Amino acid sequence: MIYTSIKEEAYQCNMQLPQLGLVLFTFGNVSVADRDKAVFAIKPSGVSYDQLTPDHMVIVDFEGRVVEGKLRPSSDTKTHAVLYKHWEGVGGITHTHSTYATAWAQSQRDIPIFGTTHADHLTSDIPCAAPMEDDMIAGNYEYETGFQIINHFNEHKLDYKEVEMILVGNHAPFTWGKTGDKSVYNSAVLETVAKMALLTEQINPKAPRLKDALIKKHYERKHGGAAYYGQE
Amino acid sequence: MIYTSIKEEAYQCNMQLPQLGLVLFTFGNVSVADRDKAVFAIKPSGVSYDQLTPDHMVIVDFEGRVVEGKLRPSSDTKTHAVLYKHWEGVGGITHTHSTYATAWAQSQRDIPIFGTTHADHLTSDIPCAAPMEDDMIAGNYEYETGFQIINHFNEHKLDYKEVEMILVGNHAPFTWGKTGDKSVYNSAVLETVAKMALLTEQINPKAPRLKDALIKKHYERKHGGAAYYGQE
Amino acid sequence: MIYTSIKEEAYQCNMQLPQLGLVLFTFGNVSVADRDKAVFAIKPSGVSYDQLTPDHMVIVDFEGRVVEGKLRPSSDTKTHAVLYKHWEGVGGITHTHSTYATAWAQSQRDIPIFGTTHADHLTSDIPCAAPMEDDMIAGNYEYETGFQIINHFNEHKLDYKEVEMILVGNHAPFTWGKTGDKSVYNSAVLETVAKMALLTEQINPKAPRLKDALIKKHYERKHGGAAYYGQE
Amino acid sequence: MIYTSIKEEAYQCNMQLPQLGLVLFTFGNVSVADRDKAVFAIKPSGVSYDQLTPDHMVIVDFEGRVVEGKLRPSSDTKTHAVLYKHWEGVGGITHTHSTYATAWAQSQRDIPIFGTTHADHLTSDIPCAAPMEDDMIAGNYEYETGFQIINHFNEHKLDYKEVEMILVGNHAPFTWGKTGDKSVYNSAVLETVAKMALLTEQINPKAPRLKDALIKKHYERKHGGAAYYGQE
Repeated sequence: MIYTSIKEEAYQCNMQLPQLGLVLFTFGNVSVADRDKAVFAIKPSGVSYDQLTPDHMVIVDFEGRVVEGKLRPSSDTKTHAVLYKHWEGVGGITHTHSTYATAWAQSQRDIPIFGTTHADHLTSDIPCAAPMEDDMIAGNYEYETGFQIINHFNEHKLDYKEVEMILVGNHAPFTWGKTGDKSVYNSAVLETVAKMALLTEQINPKAPRLKDALIKKHYERKHGGAAYYGQE
Repeated sequence: MIYTSIKEEAYQCNMQLPQLGLVLFTFGNVSVADRDKAVFAIKPSGVSYDQLTPDHMVIVDFEGRVVEGKLRPSSDTKTHAVLYKHWEGVGGITHTHSTYATAWAQSQRDIPIFGTTHADHLTSDIPCAAPMEDDMIAGNYEYETGFQIINHFNEHKLDYKEVEMILVGNHAPFTWGKTGDKSVYNSAVLETVAKMALLTEQINPKAPRLKDALIKKHYERKHGGAAYYGQE
Repeated sequence: MIYTSIKEEAYQCNMQLPQLGLVLFTFGNVSVADRDKAVFAIKPSGVSYDQLTPDHMVIVDFEGRVVEGKLRPSSDTKTHAVLYKHWEGVGGITHTHSTYATAWAQSQRDIPIFGTTHADHLTSDIPCAAPMEDDMIAGNYEYETGFQIINHFNEHKLDYKEVEMILVGNHAPFTWGKTGDKSVYNSAVLETVAKMALLTEQINPKAPRLKDALIKKHYERKHGGAAYYGQE
Repeated sequence: MIYTSIKEEAYQCNMQLPQLGLVLFTFGNVSVADRDKAVFAIKPSGVSYDQLTPDHMVIVDFEGRVVEGKLRPSSDTKTHAVLYKHWEGVGGITHTHSTYATAWAQSQRDIPIFGTTHADHLTSDIPCAAPMEDDMIAGNYEYETGFQIINHFNEHKLDYKEVEMILVGNHAPFTWGKTGDKSVYNSAVLETVAKMALLTEQINPKAPRLKDALIKKHYERKHGGAAYYGQE
């Protein structure tokens, strides 16, 4: 009974994915962490959304070990565990194979920052991690995917609190945030920005990236004493 | 109580945006003006559509100052205020980040007039204002966006009563009209025309603009004694 | 009361357009003819689909003159009249600005026959009529659009009973059939084939047209004693 | 009464096609086999989904002969029959003209394996069979389509239990599986993968195929003792 709250929250977050058009069948999963108990609740593997209940959620610790639950957790569970373990500020993680974001991941390109829709959420390009080395693939694949993400952030000096999303090359996106809701929100934003960026390049192959003054302005709108978006 | 009418109207207009597929989450806003009282009602910032009520609407004057309302108005409020102040014939304004129109804005190109779907609504290309100068961005950004729009119309000798829409470079579209409803209608038309124009260039990169005789004909269909579309 | 049947039929056909995703707002119209009475029922101009009733339909003769109805008929009425007058086998006509078909019309290209989805309905490319001569545009525009269509069929030796659709260059598609329902069906088929053809060229710019043996086979499947599709 | 079970199953499978957005009007069909009785239940030709009932399903043997049913079976029935006859492990077959898969078929290209969405389902490119020879087209067309598929698998040493889908050049996709449900599932996966592959090439015309280590990993995830996706 002690995990009821994160199970319910993880359930609600997972159910948003089909409503937002981000998943076909079971191609996605959301997890929600309870930092005090050092566990997270995650969708079981291969259970369809119309049969899912809060009680189906599996409780897993930050080493990827199942703590509670009758079903096998999502096959991506170890990736979630690694991110929770190393990034303390993360409270929720979403993984989808949404169409446009996945196409960018498959094309192995960062998504350039072309406009304010992008800049309202992050002020750098959306990073795409290179496909994993062969020995990592042959090893503990999903576990290594977590490190692939963290290493990319470290190598490119990105801050996971500023950039709450990544494309895993040849695979698909992961997004996160302080809460499960925020991680789902970020997946939807990413899909929209990914579509707009492709269309922008099709309309004008020489479209310039957003200029620095605008990037700076949008960063300031969200941060510091002068932030003025939303009601908080 | 004196603003009940425009609050209700602004609410109804805002609720059309998700129904027309023009917004994700809260990425859009509509305002409706009361010219006699020199104010407009606008969506509050960051409130989701499924929680919105008419009473949430914020009343703002044409200088951008809040007159009534408990919530902070849309972060784009000052842009609306500038347009109302300088363009007396405008009764409603809509701002969205609709996908295709935003992609054209990001590509910094005018949308060429390729056919009668476009010409039934305006007989010039849909203008795209260049990104703002750096000092304007660093200053009162949303306020300057209003002038960016007005200056573009003045410099290109466009009439805001004929061309009821613009793309703000690197940002997204604004549309307007005599009423809030008309401004929403124009946002939906713009999104459709933007998609058709991209597809037209993909099918035929050398597709010609609409020829002058057709542009003239469509202009006349809407204006003067011989207008014959609709029931009025 | 004598026109009740075609009014109801035209109403039902018009209501299919938004359900099939073929129209935005009022950008489309369907008419249904009563050959015995030499009239057709057509949608009134500029009335939105959610307010439309069967009684709104306007009865027009084959010269384009209103016979009965309180509202002004669709601005495309004269085009419908010309087609009914000259093509005796036509019982219903649909006009839309559906996105992909309109983009092909704007690009002024015939839609190549690339596959069996196309060949199941017609065995030639989907014709695109060139934009009208300037003097025709300046004259009785919608009336001339009818002749633009008929002339294109005559010049290219097309049979309106075999090819039940055309793109009017810079404008949008018209489709027809023995009944109103069939004309609406053809508009939906055209939109799908138009989208598939663009995608085909994007996937393979050198994609070949359907080969003659397949075109012949599909023609025979629909015609002659060996036809075997459907229940009739 | 002895075919009630496969009729009901075939009905349920057919009804999934419009729900999944895979068909316009009647452009698709699903069949479900009863291996013990050596028959399959298939959708009747040209009956719309909103009028379809389980009792409409037609029972056909593996030579393509109608065993039971008042309606004419789908015009693609002989293709289904050939596949059931030669591929013993197949329990259900789906044929659609879904937009993106059909566009790849029309472009006559295999769909390259670009990512894990693809690799989670099959670890080779999705094959596209070349258009049929003219003498086969002129003969028993739908029957020959079955052999066109089987021959392509034999010539390219593909295993129908590993690769449960094919594009028939100039035509459209066929998918299959142990059950009717699985064949429908495969049609939806194919459509999504087909769209992602086109977008991938648009974003990066030089996008590489998935590397061998990842293909091997995904193959192993589904096969052998170490398989760990889903609940089985």
